[in-house]
Formats: sequence, C-alpha cells, structure tokens
Amino acid sequence: MSKFHGQLDDTSEPGAAGSSDHPGSMALSLEGMPVEQRGQQWSELSPEMRAEVLPHLHDGVKTALLNDMDAAEIFETASKLAVGDVAEVIELVDEEVAQDIVDSLSDRQQQRLQQTLEYGTEQAGRLLDYTAIALHPSRRVSQVLAHIKQHGLPVFTDKIILVDNSKQYQGAVSLSTLLQAGIDEKVSALAKIEQLDIVNPSMPIQELTRLFRQNNYVSLPVVNDDGIFLGRITLDDAIDLLQGEADHQLMGLAGLDESEDLFAPVINSSARRAVWLGINLLTALLASWVIGIFEDTIQKVVALAVLMPIVASMGGIAGSQTLTIAIRGLALGQINDKNQLLLLRKELLVGLCNGMLWALGVAVIAYLWFRDPTLCLVLAAAVFVNLIAAAFAGLLIPLALERLKIDPALAGSVVLTTVTDLVGFAVFLGLGTIWLLN
Amino acid sequence: MSKFHGQLDDTSEPGAAGSSDHPGSMALSLEGMPVEQRGQQWSELSPEMRAEVLPHLHDGVKTALLNDMDAAEIFETASKLAVGDVAEVIELVDEEVAQDIVDSLSDRQQQRLQQTLEYGTEQAGRLLDYTAIALHPSRRVSQVLAHIKQHGLPVFTDKIILVDNSKQYQGAVSLSTLLQAGIDEKVSALAKIEQLDIVNPSMPIQELTRLFRQNNYVSLPVVNDDGIFLGRITLDDAIDLLQGEADHQLMGLAGLDESEDLFAPVINSSARRAVWLGINLLTALLASWVIGIFEDTIQKVVALAVLMPIVASMGGIAGSQTLTIAIRGLALGQINDKNQLLLLRKELLVGLCNGMLWALGVAVIAYLWFRDPTLCLVLAAAVFVNLIAAAFAGLLIPLALERLKIDPALAGSVVLTTVTDLVGFAVFLGLGTIWLLN
Repeated sequence: MSKFHGQLDDTSEPGAAGSSDHPGSMALSLEGMPVEQRGQQWSELSPEMRAEVLPHLHDGVKTALLNDMDAAEIFETASKLAVGDVAEVIELVDEEVAQDIVDSLSDRQQQRLQQTLEYGTEQAGRLLDYTAIALHPSRRVSQVLAHIKQHGLPVFTDKIILVDNSKQYQGAVSLSTLLQAGIDEKVSALAKIEQLDIVNPSMPIQELTRLFRQNNYVSLPVVNDDGIFLGRITLDDAIDLLQGEADHQLMGLAGLDESEDLFAPVINSSARRAVWLGINLLTALLASWVIGIFEDTIQKVVALAVLMPIVASMGGIAGSQTLTIAIRGLALGQINDKNQLLLLRKELLVGLCNGMLWALGVAVIAYLWFRDPTLCLVLAAAVFVNLIAAAFAGLLIPLALERLKIDPALAGSVVLTTVTDLVGFAVFLGLGTIWLLN
Repeated sequence: MSKFHGQLDDTSEPGAAGSSDHPGSMALSLEGMPVEQRGQQWSELSPEMRAEVLPHLHDGVKTALLNDMDAAEIFETASKLAVGDVAEVIELVDEEVAQDIVDSLSDRQQQRLQQTLEYGTEQAGRLLDYTAIALHPSRRVSQVLAHIKQHGLPVFTDKIILVDNSKQYQGAVSLSTLLQAGIDEKVSALAKIEQLDIVNPSMPIQELTRLFRQNNYVSLPVVNDDGIFLGRITLDDAIDLLQGEADHQLMGLAGLDESEDLFAPVINSSARRAVWLGINLLTALLASWVIGIFEDTIQKVVALAVLMPIVASMGGIAGSQTLTIAIRGLALGQINDKNQLLLLRKELLVGLCNGMLWALGVAVIAYLWFRDPTLCLVLAAAVFVNLIAAAFAGLLIPLALERLKIDPALAGSVVLTTVTDLVGFAVFLGLGTIWLLN
C-alpha cells in the first residue's frame, strides 16, 4: 500500500448539528459572544474540542483566541490539528511556541507541513489535504475494498487516486466506477474511462474556487510540475474560500477586513476603521477644494449650494452600481479582455439613458422649487455629465486596478467617489458660474 | 508511461482545467457574451448540452435564453432536466409550453414536480434531489452493494437512507460505515451509530445554507412533518445558495438584483437601475431641503457650503461600515437577541473613538484653511455627532428592517444615507447658524 493515505482523519463523523456541541455551531456561538465571555467559554473546552472548533473560526477570532492562550495550551491544541490547520496556527503564534509545535510533529507531518508552507496563502498548495486514498494502479478492486474496510473512507472521498512507486500521478477511479466493477479487475483498467481535472499546487485560489464553483467536483487531486501527486483539495475547503472571497468583496467595499471580528476590542476596530475614514477624508477634502474655487458663485447663487448634494449623490449611486457589477464580474471570471469594450459600451448606454431620464427629473424638481430655468439647465447638465462619468469610472477603475494588481474590491469605491464628487461639483458649479453669473 | 498519463498532462495546463466542454465553463462563457453572440452560441448547442448548461446559469441569463427559444426547443431541453430544474423552467415560460412540458413527464416525475412546487423558492423543499439511494432497513450490506453495482453511486452520495415500506425515514448509514461492515450485516444494525441531521422541507434556505456552512455535510435527508422521507439536498445546491446569498448582499447594497445579467439589454438594465436612482434622489432631495432651510446662513458664511460634504461623507462612510458588519452578521447568524445590545455598545464606543479622533482631525484642517476657531468648532461638533449617529443608525436600521421582514441588504443603505445626510447637514448648518451668526 502506498504511504500516501497515511493517518485517516478520525474527526469526520458528523454529530447532531444545530446543537452547540457541534464544532461549526460552537464556532458560530463563540463568534457571537463578547470577548470576555468568549474567552471563558473557550477555556472550558477540551483540547480535542478546541482543535475541532478552531478551523471553523474566522481569522480575526482565531487570532484573538490564540493570543490569549499560553504556550502549553496552544501546543496541546495544535497537536490535534490537521497539517493545513497547523500551518495557519504557527504563523499566528510566537516563534518559540511555533518551533515547539513543529518539533512535536512526526517526521512525516513535518515534511507535510514544510510542503504546505512552500506555497503562499493565496495558492492551492496551502489547502493540501493528506487523507486521500492513493494506491498503486496494479491493485485489484478487491484490494482497494479491503483497504477501505480496514482504514475507512475519509469524508469527501469521491475517487481513489492511482500513484506509482515514485509517487507519479497515474489517474483516478471514481468510487462509483469502483463499486460497479468486478472485484478482480485491476484499477488501472478502470482509470482509463475517467476524465479528471488536476490542480497544480501553485494555482491561485481564485482560479481554484472558480473550478469548484463551475463543476460539481467533490475533490481534486493536486499534482506538481514533475507529475508527483501531493494530496487533494476537498470541496469543504473550497467552500470556505468561496465564502472568504464573497466576504472580501462585501467588506472590502466598506474598507473592512473580511476577517473582522464582531466583538473585536473597541480600540482595534476603531484603529482599522479610522484608516478608512482618513482615506475617505482626503476624497472629501478634494471635493471641498473644488467647491472652494467657486465660493464667489455660491455666495451669489445660494441655490447652487442647496442642490449640490444631488449631483454628487446621483453620480455616486450610479457609479457604485457599475462598480459592483464589475467587481463581481471580475471575481466570477465573466469579464475578460474580449468583452471589456462591449461592456463599456453597454454601461455607457445605460448611463446615457439614465442620464437623460434623471437630468429631466431633477430639472423639473428644481424648476418647481426655484422657478429659474437656467438653474434647471445647469443642474440637468451636471447630472447628465456625472452619470456618464460614473459609468466610465465605475467600469474603468476596477479594470485598471486589476491590471495594476491592486484589489478593486478594496480600493475601487474610494477612487470612484473621488471621480464622481469632483466631476459633479466641478461641472455643476462651473456651469453655474458661466451661465448664471453672466 | 501510459497513454492516459500523457492525456492528463495536457489538461493540467492552467486554464485547460475548466475547458469549455464543461457545462460550468460553458455557462460562464455564455454569461460573458453580448446578447446576440450568446443567442447564436446557445442555438448551436445540442439539447443534451443545453440541459446540462442551463442549471449553471444565473437567473437573468437563464430567463433571457428561455424567452428566445421556441416552444419545441424548450420542450426538448426541458425533457432532459432534473425535476428541480424543470420546476424553475416552467415558472419562467408561457403557460401553454409549461403545460406541454408537464404533460410529457412520467407519472412519477409529475408527482415529484408537484411536490417540489408545493414549496416556495425560499424553502428547502425546492431543492429536493431524488437520486438518493433509499433502501429498507432489513437489507443486508451485500444487498446494498449489489444495488450500487447495478445502479451506480449518484454524485454527492455519502450515505444510504433507510426507509420502511410506508416511506417513513428510519435513519441513514454512512458509506464509510457500510464499506467497513461485514457483508452479511443488516443495515438497520449499522444505522444506530449514526447521528444525522434531517431537514424539514419548509426550512428557510438561509437556515439551510447555515447548516451546510457550519458542518461538513455532503448531503442531508429531507423528511416532512409526518416522518416521510422525501429526498435529499446535496452540497452542490447548497453552494449555489451560498453564492446567491453572498451575491444578494453585495449587489443589494447597490440596489442591484443579484441575477443581473452582465449583458442584459440596455433598456432593461436602465429601467432597473433608474428605480434605485429615483429612490436615492428622494434622499438627496431631503438633504437639499435641510440645506435650503439654512440658505441665509450659507450666504453669510460660504465656508459652510465648502465644508458641508466632509460632514456628510464621514458619516456615510462610518455608517456603511457598521451596516456592512450588521448585514453580514445577520446573514451568518452571528447576531442574535442576546448580543444585540452588546454590539450596539461596541459600535457606539467605536463611533466615539473615531468621532473624537476625526473631529480633531477636521478641526485642524479647517483651521489651517479658514483660520476661524468657531468654524472649526462647528465642523468638529458636526463630525463627532454624525459619527455617533452613524454607529446607531448603521446597527439599528438593519436590525429594525430584519424585524419588519424588510431585506436589510436591499433597503439598508438608502435609509442609512438618509439619516447620516440629514443629521450631518442639520447639525453642521444649525450649529453654524447659532455659533457663527451671533
């Protein structure tokens, strides 16, 4: 038998869920607790339970709990974790504790840990799971079944991996095919009919989540450039990534870290959010600076100051709609080099339609309010121009940021607001100066 | 080296992994196409391929493609779909075509379709999958294996369901347990050790996704109030829900439908977004109305008009941070009745910290710009008050909307902006009137 299957995860049996003794529910319950109560509850858990709950926690909470544990406790908990989770823990704790944890691992585990750490947190290699059943292609079905009978079937096993004596990946046989085959058949004969995707350990996780999302994979074998089978990636890890990606898009637009702990200490939360407020203050100052240029105009036509927020707000809303669609389209892989121009054309046409509609709308409202046709014209023109600018900016900003390898989900909204604010105020007050003061 | 291995190397190239003959990749590729090209491509697919691709498409694209097919084409494609997908299709097409599709189904399929349609699109029953292996508890392991040998193992099968002759749910045996048991054992004897969750068909899908997310389920049996086993729900459907939920949160904040088609006809996109722009215009008009009250003040102190956007913008940013955290916390189930007050306390403290910090920050900037200490005081007070109001509003608005059964992801941002704009402008211009004009 190959060395690959190794120790089987004995944490696989589902317990009664919904109830709080389930690791996932326990993790959720801990995340919903204020810090002191959470620490109390955590300290009452057994090391076994902690090791089961830890991988279910969001990063912020995980880090906070690890920081409050002493070296002995961390050591005890870490010794019960799977290698992938150990890799995460040792990067969060003191170097000394990390070294103790590494030293306590068996040779094989240390080797696996080292292999995992070769890859960045954004690469598929970090998610390597070592519980796959990997056997030599010369085995017969009866021998595979005997192996399963002895060692059990790890969760998320939909296929048996075939490797030769030098660990070269030789294909895979689905469990379904295996169970339908005659017991004397060689597994190598069954493998031929399987068309399977394999993953390179350096694959970016965004590509990996796309693979799992598009196709109904339960697990995917990981094979390196030399054709060596390293392990597998299972759907549950892919789901965590998918959730993380979605959280990142949602939270990033508000300048938040996706691992944000609901009950992080006030000072930590404040500091992180203060940075975002500061960055946005710069945007607001730029807007103020533009308004300041037109001080004289505003003094003469105060109605401009009254209507100003409408122009900026309409542009901001329209721009954020296009931006959101672009960020999601990029993440899903729907947007590519070929359709960018077509998408820009479509968004500009949408901007044109809504620009005309709402230019008319605000003009009517302004007329009913101020009874000044020129003022209406100024407002209508500014709203129109700003909605077109918003369509441009909403699509081109995330595309440009993506190309510059800056995260559009994080930086997109602040750059966009700067554009729509500046364009809105400059056009509105500029036209106001030209048309209303002469 | 085997021929097979060579083939695998070919598909291991990054990008080749999800080649376009995968239904999922085909769906993605279609979604990234402008409408005419998409229609062309779609019409070239075989009915079998269409039936495989259709379930992978987002709702907007799915509806558009179905609308362009004639009755015969829809009929041919629908005849190859699983019951759950048929249910979706017949709700999107003409009544006549729908009736034709229903009539073409076998009695058992019609019965299943009717069962599926008994539940709303927001209920677990809509996701019923009928491929589960369900056998009588008196069966022996050898009989179960013979059954699998004959009928195959459906994807996402991690357990065998036990039902008596009246379809009463009797428990389940994990595949692992089954493969480890002696072939003469009765499955009823094996079921006792399994502690399994079951899902009621009326369970809201938000609760269902939470169950799958928290626990590493591959599939869950669905059992109705009478204890009858109806079918199962598999992880791939749960992932689609999870993605849909995340899309809804992200897109909802910008007033977009999560099924928004990247290349929807301009007129449809414009109309949908126009509604959101109109709603937000009402918010902006309220803000303008508040500013209008202080026209005289602004005419006398134009600097107020210059600094106005800073107050509103800081409040809006801080509020959207709290709002985003609240929307995500509610969706994940982290926020409950017990911790709401504690969370409010925490968010208010964060607002207090950042309020003090940035009140000071903007005061310094305003002083360097206008050299007017009273103006600085007005600005600082307004920013401070608005950040506190933003913390209150950012948490209480989504909690109140949730209680009123209004979707916080959709309505939250517009209500929040209204609050932070009105509070910001009123406090800033009100204090300006009191402190600067006397």
